[in-house]
Amino acid sequence: MDLTFNFTSIPHIFFGARKLNELYNIIPKFGRNVLYVIGGKSLKESGKWDEIVNMMEKKSINISIISVYGEPTPTLIDETVVMYKNKNIDLVVGIGGGSVTDAGKAISAMMPKEDSIMNYLEGVGNKIHDGKKIPYIAIPTTSGTGSEATKNAVISEVGSEGFKKSLRHDNLVPNYAIIDPELVLSSPSSVSAACGMDAFTQLIEAYVSPRASPITNVLAFTGMRYVKDAIIPVCSTHALDIGVRSAMAYGSLMSGIALANAGLGIIHGLASSLGGLFEIPHGVVCGTLLAESTKMNITQLQKIGDAGKKGLLKYAMVGALLVGKEGYENVDVSYYCSILIDTLEKWTNDLNIDRLGKYGITIKEVDKIVEKARMKNNPVQLKRENIMEIVQNRI
Amino acid sequence: MDLTFNFTSIPHIFFGARKLNELYNIIPKFGRNVLYVIGGKSLKESGKWDEIVNMMEKKSINISIISVYGEPTPTLIDETVVMYKNKNIDLVVGIGGGSVTDAGKAISAMMPKEDSIMNYLEGVGNKIHDGKKIPYIAIPTTSGTGSEATKNAVISEVGSEGFKKSLRHDNLVPNYAIIDPELVLSSPSSVSAACGMDAFTQLIEAYVSPRASPITNVLAFTGMRYVKDAIIPVCSTHALDIGVRSAMAYGSLMSGIALANAGLGIIHGLASSLGGLFEIPHGVVCGTLLAESTKMNITQLQKIGDAGKKGLLKYAMVGALLVGKEGYENVDVSYYCSILIDTLEKWTNDLNIDRLGKYGITIKEVDKIVEKARMKNNPVQLKRENIMEIVQNRI
Repeated sequence: MDLTFNFTSIPHIFFGARKLNELYNIIPKFGRNVLYVIGGKSLKESGKWDEIVNMMEKKSINISIISVYGEPTPTLIDETVVMYKNKNIDLVVGIGGGSVTDAGKAISAMMPKEDSIMNYLEGVGNKIHDGKKIPYIAIPTTSGTGSEATKNAVISEVGSEGFKKSLRHDNLVPNYAIIDPELVLSSPSSVSAACGMDAFTQLIEAYVSPRASPITNVLAFTGMRYVKDAIIPVCSTHALDIGVRSAMAYGSLMSGIALANAGLGIIHGLASSLGGLFEIPHGVVCGTLLAESTKMNITQLQKIGDAGKKGLLKYAMVGALLVGKEGYENVDVSYYCSILIDTLEKWTNDLNIDRLGKYGITIKEVDKIVEKARMKNNPVQLKRENIMEIVQNRI
Repeated sequence: MDLTFNFTSIPHIFFGARKLNELYNIIPKFGRNVLYVIGGKSLKESGKWDEIVNMMEKKSINISIISVYGEPTPTLIDETVVMYKNKNIDLVVGIGGGSVTDAGKAISAMMPKEDSIMNYLEGVGNKIHDGKKIPYIAIPTTSGTGSEATKNAVISEVGSEGFKKSLRHDNLVPNYAIIDPELVLSSPSSVSAACGMDAFTQLIEAYVSPRASPITNVLAFTGMRYVKDAIIPVCSTHALDIGVRSAMAYGSLMSGIALANAGLGIIHGLASSLGGLFEIPHGVVCGTLLAESTKMNITQLQKIGDAGKKGLLKYAMVGALLVGKEGYENVDVSYYCSILIDTLEKWTNDLNIDRLGKYGITIKEVDKIVEKARMKNNPVQLKRENIMEIVQNRI
């Protein structure tokens, strides 16, 4: 038995309806100058933003606000840092989807630095971030990336030389994460679907990762347990059901903790490439590749004999979970692997997850996409032709 | 579905054989003046202490050393703080059993304070600790308390007016926990037995606690999964098996994380009372009360109809786990509850866990013990006579 692992600290978590109120108790611990990083209009339309601003006034907290539209770019981070670095900001609070929570995380980390974030992005710059930052509170308004619990911020530059790379350090895990499912209630079904597929992708990729530990396994599994029954209802009949929204938010949170400690696989390896080259929502990329990549991984694991058994058993365990046969270790592996693929294909259809073609991606571009893709912690080594097939099948 | 919980941050964890080496990479992040809190002779006899001291010299780290014998008293903490508070200590490192890791935690927390720890102990003083501390690294050399992952330090004063109370704050969770099973290899079987029973007690009490959340449930369960197969071998044939030691260390770590977020029950409520009144190792108290208290809780849960069903199902799930029937949600509840009690009684016998009488405790003292006991987060409200019966049966 080889039991050895590292586990990054996780944020102090407040989870549940109306836990947003904890924010007002936490802020004074850090100071009176808060930089809010927020998204577009949905937070404002929900009335929650007015509630927060009123409370800040009542508590005599000085607030600055930066709005983030779309995925954060190096320019956005650098300009924000220059603008606020001499303003004695005590705390950064990010409230929004994955882009916003990542932007807030990156801003809090770059505030003590004198140079551009470009220098610190993995695979882009040559410097290593030292983990010094301004304290950061993450408050997600979607249930997808789990960024509220991770140690990296994804920064994108879209274009033919584009990238989607991480600023990463153990100390960048947010100090606090407040997950209040009421903030997700107004999320439209297309967003909930893409985010939900992203969360499930993260859960399953972390679960089958060669870097998985017993802790990440149980956290990923409990996350999948909640997502499996909620992902369809949350996009249809139960969008306003706080219990169902809670289940998705819980799955998303678990996905963040699991991926931060077990890593991800080929789907996120491709998402990094696709997200740099094209304007396409991250959740859609994950959602559209989920069933196809899982099928390819299973097919390739089946070809390598004993070396593939552990990975196949894990996929089968997930398949069994999805049809309510949780915990049966003696599963019929190939039967439940098929069940898994079928279920993921059904989700993709039922949730109307777009194909890549919808975003102008054609067969011509597959080469370039695969060129820039990385395997990450995939459970099986894929050949270039396998990866091409995944992408081609989702054009 | 009511999904709402808080979860305290956990330390950055390094787990596995030879992970002690991570210590030498971490220390320079904090500074050059380290206060080591260590135990008695076992660390020195293992040769590990010389290894650490040599490495400190090599890296030009200044070290101060305080030795802790037995459970930490308020006087020990106060005197240590007075001695070192003007010595520019950058970091406290506690290496030892639960008493040592708790002492280190309390010292790191009291270093910024000007008054006695008595003022901040729950149920003893009137002040609330503000969480400010010197950074702290916990390195356990036993697999029992899980203190390396908790936010409280237990401080004891033994005697007729004695107590065993906690200094507690979310921020007292150690910054880093290094769990290296090699450090536990030399633990004698009587210590391994008592510590193992403590860990299992913490896991099961956190699991059945009304404050349990889905996260604490899976963490407690994965901990029990490892302990169940290791607790007997680690005290007999496999004391030098690093895999078995790892399994126990993992269970202990999980017990710390679970209890910090779900609380404990009547066994620890009694342990607090017994530990204040008598010189008796904490692990022995837990071990000797485990089967008897579990039996009493199950009996009382069976008497309250529907209100007891959830607790009984959880006990049955543990019983099923112990005989390899993990995950069968449709367990035969009363059958597996019996299995659980039988197994815990067998462990108590096989591990030669002392009765309370061995420490001079007699029937006369039961009243006083029960008087000072607290229910904590027990899954069922016990009557005074129930608690008396538990203690009487273990005299």
